Amino acid sequence: MSNLQKEDFSAWYIQTIKQADLMDYSPVRGCIIFKPDSYEIWEHIQEAFNLRFKEEGIRNAYFPMLIPESFFTKEKDHIEGFSPELPWVTEAAGEPLEERLALRPTSETMIGTAFSDWINSYRDLPYEINQWANVFRWEKKTLPFLRTSEFLWQEGHTAHEDEASARERTMRMLEIYKETIEGLLAIPVYSGQKTPSERFAGAVDTYSVEAMMKDGKAVQAGTSHYMGTKFAEAFDIKYLNRDNEHVLAHTTSWGVSTRLIGATIMVHGDEQGLVLPPAIAAKQVVLVPVGPWKKKTEILERLEVLSKDLKAAGVRVLIDDSDNSPGYKFNEWELRGVPLRVEFGPRDLTNNQVMIKMRDIEGKEAVSLDGIVESIQTALADMQTRLLETARKNRQQHEYTHIETLDELKEHIENKRQEGETPGFVLVGWDGTDETEEIIKEETGFTTRNIPFDPIVEKKTCIVSGKLAKHTVWLARAY
Amino acid sequence: MSNLQKEDFSAWYIQTIKQADLMDYSPVRGCIIFKPDSYEIWEHIQEAFNLRFKEEGIRNAYFPMLIPESFFTKEKDHIEGFSPELPWVTEAAGEPLEERLALRPTSETMIGTAFSDWINSYRDLPYEINQWANVFRWEKKTLPFLRTSEFLWQEGHTAHEDEASARERTMRMLEIYKETIEGLLAIPVYSGQKTPSERFAGAVDTYSVEAMMKDGKAVQAGTSHYMGTKFAEAFDIKYLNRDNEHVLAHTTSWGVSTRLIGATIMVHGDEQGLVLPPAIAAKQVVLVPVGPWKKKTEILERLEVLSKDLKAAGVRVLIDDSDNSPGYKFNEWELRGVPLRVEFGPRDLTNNQVMIKMRDIEGKEAVSLDGIVESIQTALADMQTRLLETARKNRQQHEYTHIETLDELKEHIENKRQEGETPGFVLVGWDGTDETEEIIKEETGFTTRNIPFDPIVEKKTCIVSGKLAKHTVWLARAY
Repeated sequence: MSNLQKEDFSAWYIQTIKQADLMDYSPVRGCIIFKPDSYEIWEHIQEAFNLRFKEEGIRNAYFPMLIPESFFTKEKDHIEGFSPELPWVTEAAGEPLEERLALRPTSETMIGTAFSDWINSYRDLPYEINQWANVFRWEKKTLPFLRTSEFLWQEGHTAHEDEASARERTMRMLEIYKETIEGLLAIPVYSGQKTPSERFAGAVDTYSVEAMMKDGKAVQAGTSHYMGTKFAEAFDIKYLNRDNEHVLAHTTSWGVSTRLIGATIMVHGDEQGLVLPPAIAAKQVVLVPVGPWKKKTEILERLEVLSKDLKAAGVRVLIDDSDNSPGYKFNEWELRGVPLRVEFGPRDLTNNQVMIKMRDIEGKEAVSLDGIVESIQTALADMQTRLLETARKNRQQHEYTHIETLDELKEHIENKRQEGETPGFVLVGWDGTDETEEIIKEETGFTTRNIPFDPIVEKKTCIVSGKLAKHTVWLARAY
Repeated sequence: MSNLQKEDFSAWYIQTIKQADLMDYSPVRGCIIFKPDSYEIWEHIQEAFNLRFKEEGIRNAYFPMLIPESFFTKEKDHIEGFSPELPWVTEAAGEPLEERLALRPTSETMIGTAFSDWINSYRDLPYEINQWANVFRWEKKTLPFLRTSEFLWQEGHTAHEDEASARERTMRMLEIYKETIEGLLAIPVYSGQKTPSERFAGAVDTYSVEAMMKDGKAVQAGTSHYMGTKFAEAFDIKYLNRDNEHVLAHTTSWGVSTRLIGATIMVHGDEQGLVLPPAIAAKQVVLVPVGPWKKKTEILERLEVLSKDLKAAGVRVLIDDSDNSPGYKFNEWELRGVPLRVEFGPRDLTNNQVMIKMRDIEGKEAVSLDGIVESIQTALADMQTRLLETARKNRQQHEYTHIETLDELKEHIENKRQEGETPGFVLVGWDGTDETEEIIKEETGFTTRNIPFDPIVEKKTCIVSGKLAKHTVWLARAY
């Protein structure tokens, strides 16, 4: 078997998501269909975040999708950032509209307008809400899950009395993103601050969690923005403070999207196809009767009991009792990423055992039928932990911290190319100017990912100018 | 106090939803903001239906919102029905589009196109999916929750081998709608078949569940459609059957929307404001300290313990320990529809009791602190049942079955108007022709709601033509 994942990661990705029946293309450019197995991943992501948001006292709401053009023009940086990507509704019910309506790319303008009405006094603050919604960004290059014209996301929006409280919320959500992405999706992330050129359009500060795919490229997995009073000024979000003065609120916004599905596939998938963390797999366990099982009805009966017991314990399980060969079934469920396979045949029945194959480990293990439900639950929990550890190790192997100059970076990239290896993430010193950042991008295709809060190494000099480094920053190619 | 609900139901409705903080208008015509307390009702509706759909083996997916114009033109009746209400995207990313894209009013065309690709053999059938999505219908008259330009809904779509299986699914979903709307929202509904003129655009048969509001007007609360092979023909959904022939699939679709929120308010609300069934209330219980409670810290401490115990038992509870007066608090939580209020003061502490006020019952009851969590759970369950019974009784009082002619109907309407009463739902005989149906509508403003499966009375002659009635049909004014 050729190693498609290593040789052509993009081709591997497309093949994997098609074979695993996760998506289909639609006739509208860059819009995909989320088939049930990918949509269920999204549902598990939603559940996990809703739980965390609720703990924080943040409630869900829903705002109109269509945004009048005049809303966008109120915040200059915001419209500049988003206008190149907006689709516009210009007619409805057979008549031209008086004002064009944008399909939301994000809802700061709509929610800012509402906040302006709803927030009057410091007693109304903090005002903290979230919405789950579809959003639109008409981008030139698209890639299923990772960059689509329409995608699904959550966007949280909060307003606060002062900078300290707004910044606390900004950082807290970044932390929740890190914990949930690592815990649920088993994807290790780097937390840090985006450089000014990579900030959200209209933000004062943008923070991100960045993940490394198996090909060494980066996915920005979640962002959290401190807006200062910029949006409050543009949308007139003022409140009566404790000193009876009308002052501007400080706002934040933060989001994760269906690109997390793509990141999960690119972090855990292997040559056999999809590998899903148990926490989000639509099916966690597949039960496959093997050997001459049709001649012995007890085989299927025992599997049906096991299936019932597993379901009662909250495990998502299915039995594959189709006429396909065991080999065909094994392959089918492996490429769909089912975390754990149970094989059970007449010999196993005699030995009071099942054979268990974990999706991420070579070889099978005989496991006693006594306490089998607990054994399976433990195996799933172990796999969840192991996937994160494995992803951490993979990531560590492609972190480079020794590069001091632009020439060394180019040499590094060229060397890795010749080795058929990824150049990975490179930690460098940066003088903090737009100019040197732009030079890095133009000459290497690498972009700044973020300025990590706890860099594994502190870099002293700027990779381009050789001047004293203002920041230590992660560079990588990015999706 | 004037009886606004009786005198001007529309004014009462708008006042109630604004005071209960359920929604806000948006600057885009007919698009509303679902504030957290109404969105949470929707989340409870989603949970309940997702559970039922899952039991049926129906999985969620997500399809693109934008639908190319050419898709609509494939099914003639469908485009005729929906084209007057479509908003269109005509430009994106600064350029005109080659083909206009409609904002989906429903997804038969998009999903039909996908089914055509996905369904090849009888082994693929039935193919059954659902999606939760925003949809758009640019209607002239709008009303919060009940008729909005953008609304949220679920739309199920299934494909089957034959008519019997498709019809079974159509009827099964109608049954699930009835059970869930009655059980969860405490709204009694009439199940029946829509007349041909009221069918979904492109359906062979449309069935509905119809609810009566407190003003006697109807809300179509859910619909289920059998499409025959019409959409399969238009979108080429063919499969290889058991005899190895390529034949057309039979399809269905069915949906409920955020108008259920509006219906819930209009069925249960009263002069004091919102009345919410416990099953969907964001807050089921409010704890209010009364009397000189600030002087006795034990009062609030005991309420905090109770709050914790209730939460642990899965009850949604809040404590109102603000500085507002008890009267203010009582009014505030009544107009927001909180089902159960607990009052607790120094005297109650002495007596080892709390005072309980149910939102739908006059007067308070003293309840022992021993076993208080169970008492509250029972009270909430009782209220859920009682609301359905009360709604059934209200409905029964405005069901009229004695009307035989159009003149009698007009007289009935005029009499009720003079009494300041609603003309309610009227059960009549109908000869089954479009002409007589149109005459009823033009001369009375009443429309056919549905042909009930089990009419409480069988009518013999058509109310308009006097001919033999083909059907017994419910008439009403409708939202």
